[in-house]
Amino acid sequence: MNNQKRLRDFDISIGELEPGTRNSITDVDGVTVGHVTLSDGDIQTGVTAIHPHQGDTFQEKLIASSHVINGFGKTVGTVQLKELGLLETPIVLTNTLNVGTATEACVEYMLEQNPEIGRTTGTVNPLVGECNDMLLNDIRGQFVTKEHVHEALRNASETFEEGSVGAGRGMLCYSLKGGIGTSSRIVGLDHGSYTLGALVLSNFGILRDLTIQGRPIGKELKEALLDSWEEKDKGSIMVIIATDLPVSERQLNRIIKRSVTGLSRTGSIITHGSGEMVVGFSTATTIPHQKPKSPIVIPTLHEEDLDVAFRAVGEATEEAVLNSLVTATEVTGRDGHERPAFKDLLDTFSITL
Amino acid sequence: MNNQKRLRDFDISIGELEPGTRNSITDVDGVTVGHVTLSDGDIQTGVTAIHPHQGDTFQEKLIASSHVINGFGKTVGTVQLKELGLLETPIVLTNTLNVGTATEACVEYMLEQNPEIGRTTGTVNPLVGECNDMLLNDIRGQFVTKEHVHEALRNASETFEEGSVGAGRGMLCYSLKGGIGTSSRIVGLDHGSYTLGALVLSNFGILRDLTIQGRPIGKELKEALLDSWEEKDKGSIMVIIATDLPVSERQLNRIIKRSVTGLSRTGSIITHGSGEMVVGFSTATTIPHQKPKSPIVIPTLHEEDLDVAFRAVGEATEEAVLNSLVTATEVTGRDGHERPAFKDLLDTFSITL
Amino acid sequence: MNNQKRLRDFDISIGELEPGTRNSITDVDGVTVGHVTLSDGDIQTGVTAIHPHQGDTFQEKLIASSHVINGFGKTVGTVQLKELGLLETPIVLTNTLNVGTATEACVEYMLEQNPEIGRTTGTVNPLVGECNDMLLNDIRGQFVTKEHVHEALRNASETFEEGSVGAGRGMLCYSLKGGIGTSSRIVGLDHGSYTLGALVLSNFGILRDLTIQGRPIGKELKEALLDSWEEKDKGSIMVIIATDLPVSERQLNRIIKRSVTGLSRTGSIITHGSGEMVVGFSTATTIPHQKPKSPIVIPTLHEEDLDVAFRAVGEATEEAVLNSLVTATEVTGRDGHERPAFKDLLDTFSITL
Amino acid sequence: MNNQKRLRDFDISIGELEPGTRNSITDVDGVTVGHVTLSDGDIQTGVTAIHPHQGDTFQEKLIASSHVINGFGKTVGTVQLKELGLLETPIVLTNTLNVGTATEACVEYMLEQNPEIGRTTGTVNPLVGECNDMLLNDIRGQFVTKEHVHEALRNASETFEEGSVGAGRGMLCYSLKGGIGTSSRIVGLDHGSYTLGALVLSNFGILRDLTIQGRPIGKELKEALLDSWEEKDKGSIMVIIATDLPVSERQLNRIIKRSVTGLSRTGSIITHGSGEMVVGFSTATTIPHQKPKSPIVIPTLHEEDLDVAFRAVGEATEEAVLNSLVTATEVTGRDGHERPAFKDLLDTFSITL
Repeated sequence: MNNQKRLRDFDISIGELEPGTRNSITDVDGVTVGHVTLSDGDIQTGVTAIHPHQGDTFQEKLIASSHVINGFGKTVGTVQLKELGLLETPIVLTNTLNVGTATEACVEYMLEQNPEIGRTTGTVNPLVGECNDMLLNDIRGQFVTKEHVHEALRNASETFEEGSVGAGRGMLCYSLKGGIGTSSRIVGLDHGSYTLGALVLSNFGILRDLTIQGRPIGKELKEALLDSWEEKDKGSIMVIIATDLPVSERQLNRIIKRSVTGLSRTGSIITHGSGEMVVGFSTATTIPHQKPKSPIVIPTLHEEDLDVAFRAVGEATEEAVLNSLVTATEVTGRDGHERPAFKDLLDTFSITL
Repeated sequence: MNNQKRLRDFDISIGELEPGTRNSITDVDGVTVGHVTLSDGDIQTGVTAIHPHQGDTFQEKLIASSHVINGFGKTVGTVQLKELGLLETPIVLTNTLNVGTATEACVEYMLEQNPEIGRTTGTVNPLVGECNDMLLNDIRGQFVTKEHVHEALRNASETFEEGSVGAGRGMLCYSLKGGIGTSSRIVGLDHGSYTLGALVLSNFGILRDLTIQGRPIGKELKEALLDSWEEKDKGSIMVIIATDLPVSERQLNRIIKRSVTGLSRTGSIITHGSGEMVVGFSTATTIPHQKPKSPIVIPTLHEEDLDVAFRAVGEATEEAVLNSLVTATEVTGRDGHERPAFKDLLDTFSITL
Repeated sequence: MNNQKRLRDFDISIGELEPGTRNSITDVDGVTVGHVTLSDGDIQTGVTAIHPHQGDTFQEKLIASSHVINGFGKTVGTVQLKELGLLETPIVLTNTLNVGTATEACVEYMLEQNPEIGRTTGTVNPLVGECNDMLLNDIRGQFVTKEHVHEALRNASETFEEGSVGAGRGMLCYSLKGGIGTSSRIVGLDHGSYTLGALVLSNFGILRDLTIQGRPIGKELKEALLDSWEEKDKGSIMVIIATDLPVSERQLNRIIKRSVTGLSRTGSIITHGSGEMVVGFSTATTIPHQKPKSPIVIPTLHEEDLDVAFRAVGEATEEAVLNSLVTATEVTGRDGHERPAFKDLLDTFSITL
Repeated sequence: MNNQKRLRDFDISIGELEPGTRNSITDVDGVTVGHVTLSDGDIQTGVTAIHPHQGDTFQEKLIASSHVINGFGKTVGTVQLKELGLLETPIVLTNTLNVGTATEACVEYMLEQNPEIGRTTGTVNPLVGECNDMLLNDIRGQFVTKEHVHEALRNASETFEEGSVGAGRGMLCYSLKGGIGTSSRIVGLDHGSYTLGALVLSNFGILRDLTIQGRPIGKELKEALLDSWEEKDKGSIMVIIATDLPVSERQLNRIIKRSVTGLSRTGSIITHGSGEMVVGFSTATTIPHQKPKSPIVIPTLHEEDLDVAFRAVGEATEEAVLNSLVTATEVTGRDGHERPAFKDLLDTFSITL
């Protein structure tokens, strides 16, 4: 998307399934993504917002699930998501110490659209994810404002940038610049062709573990770099999975859990400090906020149809991480800390992917 | 405490175990509680803050656990609490739509105390709980500010008011005024005498289910009232459990889960709309933020010693709920909505407890 | 059923909802229950089998869920039940140390009916629950045989005995004789009238905690008895919930979790040694073992319709426990240990319920 | 061990950490492993038993944890393991339909050693794992007897065979012969050097996904084989993790969860039909069955020390799977079904690892 050089432009394809048209989470019909990027000296942070569909998510909720790979993270909204199996707001991603602001803004956004919230119906459950960008960003400054969140929500479209943008502005991936990446897969079943897309906010891993299609490229780079600005992993990854597969929240949970296979294939050992969280939703069925008179009919897969989805989620997550890495641009931020772009290092050391 | 008439002042004692000196969560050494109450026309809400100990909770963390009775709620901070089994901030309670503000404020509070957060060490995980006070409070207005949270944190002391105060200002309990309540129990074991305390933010239940020591007082009141301002339960309850018992986070989880027995004995059927959440911590061991050179030695109970704690947590939770009910004062709030005080109804209808 | 004097024959009705025709789990269409009772000196044990429907459960599976109240128990089959949300065999209850035998027998039973298991399709997941009857039964003898299990499966019918029968033969409840009990409730919704039934294998609690409709009858009996053959609770309870409500496994889980409210109202504090486990299934939809060509359409409730089911499950569980208590007959077993029947004690001490 | 050609004999070392002396789960002091292998025509199955220490596990329990990667499996004993965080028996592995028999045998074994079980103390919680060997073994015949289990328990020693032995006799791995494999890693920390070992019963995956150190060897073999006896994955994997690291059950859970990174690096996508289960225990502390007079003191790691253990568990699991693959010998079993040995295929097609 947006003319950035992505993994497949290096002639690398992950896995065996076909990606969707854009190879993006927005291949799932109705999904849009918006960024606000803050880049000004010590301030290197931002917001990324994902609309799960184009209607009012509060009135027409989606079946959703979350999965904790490593719970050293501060995601907001998963208690209710798990209890009710429903997503009822857009998903907002930002830095760890601005989760409160993003939560407030997401609530405001929903209140504006739904005057009955807090009056004739109950409250609303915002879904806010985060990673810690403290190396490059003055995270203590908490520079994300509610307006930034609103802007990211308004900005959203089917095409969007990857890399050092939005919430990904200050994030690291395998000790290099990381950030936003996306990818998708087509899931072909007897009864139709479906799409599954992943968007990641990558901020995890240490250089020597980075692996692309089995190649220990992290070790190669580490040797080339000769020095060691590699640090302990204090990162995180947020993985957002969208699909139009007809699934129950239990089935969706089984699917999104498998994103760990993709993360592992890029070299992740899921370090202690790396909060790793997956949130998924299905656009196949909308669940009305207002109680209808009859039971709600939910089409779901037979479990044996899940294997293709399991393969798809691993592949899409893996490629989304690698897309975040190859699209990210170098960032210099707080106190002059800098992290190089993977693609620049490849050039510098004449390494061919 | 504070000269309010509490359940035991009606000659009602719950259970068979002895309460601590104050019959309060603050009987656990080091625990303090502060309130800020907002009461101005349509604004009937507030903040309640619980300090788990008097040191810096970030530097000296406590073993902690959370338990979801009904996850229709928006508590912040439980993902990390569960992963690491640690509490590293005070606990802040407020109304549902101010959770974002309270999260921000709690982060600010921790940043002030700990200049290394976000610089030389990672971030911090605030713990914020909530209930929905939309009937009496203009919750859409989001009137709680960060300063209110700071004030509640500063206000905290070993004695505090119960009832329609702090976060409990606009809350309902069994369709009457509810809010803050507390109670404690002594847990006698071979190797010492320990204390377990509960604080509740009560906001759940419908009148006809209210039961005190087996007496269906809710039904009696409903008949006396003749009318039915009873509504669907859109409430919640936050239960905070503090103890100085030496326990692992698994054992603590086993203990706090049993708070449901106390809730049930007051008549709760745990309705769909009532988010019910328990957070517990033990002050017996502090876990240093900085890694020490040797393993951390944690004294824990033999499982067979847990039965007294199981009994204690049910009794303390039950009595805390009833204390919130008998201490609460009548509140008139948003759009003139009002909820009577239980104690006033007893007087009105000459019912003796 | 079967001319036993049940709780309602003492003019005690639990809760406000109406029971089904038989006030039994078998009010859910298709459910049948069979017992084999072993009573011979030191051998006081047995088997209780529940058929969830009258077809082949392996070919037509049911949406199912399990919930652990206290995991100090040895139930077999819940890992897969949770992953797939499906029940594919009858449920077999027996004593703790015969779980292996019952598992074998349940597998045999399924193999006989389904020649393709282990040949052209995978294996089968038996569901076996247990309680510990070691006081009255020589549990080390492991006297239940596979043939006993087959017999209980064959025996099953819509009417069955309660009390000291089947798996309940050697069980205790509040230090008195317990065992099998059942009850049901009608759940009226806009779109129809549904049934929810509970069957319990009660084996938990200590005398002084026993409460019936708020009356501390356990304390009364304890005073009357003057002595204390009360022991530490090493019990358990298995609660089986059947319903024809159209629910997802998540919704069913929300429902069955609420059985704890009923247990609590009888006085349970959920002691350490008392494994407490709930298994539920819905007969509303059958899920075919063989993959169909199109998605499987599952009718489910709107969450707001769940409140009546939440009330029903608490009431049915409470009444099932009390039915197990009032129907149980005195048993003398291993080494002459004996436990009196609740109803005999009422007579002895002229206590009116 | 036992003169079998293992992965390292092919000059392949997984990861960066050093293995223990035997590169085996038995590098953890006190752990022993025993097999009974049944190989007679259609009967190709067996039992593998793991003793977690050389004392009486019931009297001296170990901190333990289980983790479900994919719950399509029939492991027995995890409900209590999770509640109490304790292992109190050896671990027995066998085929899926003999889980009942193995459970009975494990109970018998414990009863023999502990005459007080079921008399003066409660019951015992056997831990039995399984995979489905139906392709090569007449699993419907349920040919494993209790005596086989006892024999495996008696057989146990510090050296043992890998591959097509014990419970691994009839198992497949990536469509080739799989079975038992093991590996270990040294975990060096400031306060000492610890050991973590993995034992797997491998029975999962499809050929084209098999990857060794990033090399898509499965695809190479599939092309060489030209044909496709590859089938849908109906497998499973049991992973047993032993360590002498001083950890709480929560920390142990964090560790064993990471075994999925190793599985993923061998190519696993965790298919629907593949029950994948991890059970871990720590020998660092024994928890007495009898309640002592004072609290039990448990040394645990600071969380930041866990990263080496996280790396170790991934590496050991990965190498254990590959050891099961390279040591397995060809088996012809039920109805003449056969699965080739990986090492034989390498020879046949002159492929160098």
